Amino acid sequence: MSWTSAPDTEVTLNDIRGAAARIAPIARRTPVMTSRSFDREAGVQAFFKCENLQRGGAFKIRGAANFLFSIPKPDLARGVVAFSSGNHAQAVAIAAKEVGARAIVVMPADAPKSKVAATRANGAEIVTYDRLREDREAIGAKIAAETGATLVPPYDHPWTMAGAGTTAAELLAEVGDLGALAVCIGGGGLIAGCAIAAKALAPGIRIFGVEPELANDTWLSVRKGERVGIELPETIADGLRSPKPGTLTFPVIQRLVEDVVLVSEDEIKAAVRFLLSRMKILVEPSGAVAAAAVLFRKLPLEIKRVGVILSGGNVDQDVLASILSEGR
Amino acid sequence: MSWTSAPDTEVTLNDIRGAAARIAPIARRTPVMTSRSFDREAGVQAFFKCENLQRGGAFKIRGAANFLFSIPKPDLARGVVAFSSGNHAQAVAIAAKEVGARAIVVMPADAPKSKVAATRANGAEIVTYDRLREDREAIGAKIAAETGATLVPPYDHPWTMAGAGTTAAELLAEVGDLGALAVCIGGGGLIAGCAIAAKALAPGIRIFGVEPELANDTWLSVRKGERVGIELPETIADGLRSPKPGTLTFPVIQRLVEDVVLVSEDEIKAAVRFLLSRMKILVEPSGAVAAAAVLFRKLPLEIKRVGVILSGGNVDQDVLASILSEGR
Repeated sequence: MSWTSAPDTEVTLNDIRGAAARIAPIARRTPVMTSRSFDREAGVQAFFKCENLQRGGAFKIRGAANFLFSIPKPDLARGVVAFSSGNHAQAVAIAAKEVGARAIVVMPADAPKSKVAATRANGAEIVTYDRLREDREAIGAKIAAETGATLVPPYDHPWTMAGAGTTAAELLAEVGDLGALAVCIGGGGLIAGCAIAAKALAPGIRIFGVEPELANDTWLSVRKGERVGIELPETIADGLRSPKPGTLTFPVIQRLVEDVVLVSEDEIKAAVRFLLSRMKILVEPSGAVAAAAVLFRKLPLEIKRVGVILSGGNVDQDVLASILSEGR
Repeated sequence: MSWTSAPDTEVTLNDIRGAAARIAPIARRTPVMTSRSFDREAGVQAFFKCENLQRGGAFKIRGAANFLFSIPKPDLARGVVAFSSGNHAQAVAIAAKEVGARAIVVMPADAPKSKVAATRANGAEIVTYDRLREDREAIGAKIAAETGATLVPPYDHPWTMAGAGTTAAELLAEVGDLGALAVCIGGGGLIAGCAIAAKALAPGIRIFGVEPELANDTWLSVRKGERVGIELPETIADGLRSPKPGTLTFPVIQRLVEDVVLVSEDEIKAAVRFLLSRMKILVEPSGAVAAAAVLFRKLPLEIKRVGVILSGGNVDQDVLASILSEGR
């Protein structure tokens, strides 16, 4: 597959700067929000990078756009294929539409309806699979082999990681010095890219990963010192249901991330409610885990200024209604 | 009461500029958002002034802060009193806390719980009344007479209107030329202030007021050419339940507002859902009526660039859950 031919797997700040220039026509420079009531509750000064307000409703467009713009033209003409629980799917669909490429997206049959609808609305062809019994990577690879399409990996690729890293680069450019950065971990592309950018721009910054207790594969892996796989996790944070860290993302996490902390399902839901009712922004459960970790004081207490990445905002109305009803 | 001694009831752009300088330490310069999906649906290019992201969750802090900063110091020392269904209450509480004044707030017993809690959290004393049987203005006047506190009117005062007008001034400074501006109408303070600012800055701009069908007092009044009162309206847009335009706001509306358009309860709820699910921002029903008017194409169809004021975002979780469940 074409993407394995990327010349260099070590992502640098330079790659992230290149990605920033490449994706500028497609991705938004999202706002950074602050909240007195959050700060009071959490005992910190938090700066929220609002990727829920990003195009496609999540940071994923950054990696997808950087990837598609990096594919050689003749390869791009044969289309792209992606597998995703939703946000990456939508991002690939948007980026493919922008560059005029055909996109086929492999999505779990139980993916949030809003994500499926939005992916289809952006012109992608959708292939569904059974998340519990079928292997999405195999399905994606088969389609790639049959059509000559380039597989766009959701996280485990230098181009994807470099694109994701533009999130932290923008945040630091806007708010300056931060004691720490809190980032959710699914496959690890967002935190790997962000850690590379942040450590290059502000070497003293401390990077913390956050996972749901129910999807603690990276937490286990950093403790064991090697990539550990878990059963397919059933957390409400559907974007973080990857069972194992990536081969490229994990070494970056080992090198640059100080610790991975865990949040419960209730803490995730409480963070979604807080962000909605107090800050008036909709953040999906996956996107709220880093905020949950800060809100429930899982980071070292001496940290005062913390960047929090709200990675996405795509959540079905019935899921949201149920999260709200639990909070009454 | 002190506030009737305001020297001049004719609000000008100069007053609004003065208000902008005065409120800068307290109020936020809120972001302006755009949305491809909204524009596609509505057939316009819309620029949303996000007062739902304002301090206290609504534009009201602008008028309240300008008012409190304008009260002579000896009067301020005797405190302030306000009556409000919620957003104005919270705004007065925040502004009073900032200037170190005592605040008493008269709120209906059925005001949204989130608004009552937030007002109390900001240190105000709360007096409740029965919205259907008691007269909040009389209660406020009685407290003012007994304590010497200054009554902070929610809309019908030059200082309040000038403060509210800073909303449109900021919007126009950020996005430049607009064909029209759509603003919700409760008592009319927001639209009066915004119309004065917008017409002074861009004389060609067309101003449209928006009311719920169930709270059409200004719609009726502009048609009759005089202030018409209606039964206390039961619209879901609780911030727009004023039964009659203001004595000061109405003449401004007659002079500067081209038309008032109406939206149904279903259209308001659909707009709340759209803003939440597609744009990831929480806007309360009152705050969404102007967006509803644009979304459902109630403005003249030749208008292409339109400013939309999202006036607030304070909504109880159970109300929101019910709005979401209706949308399934």
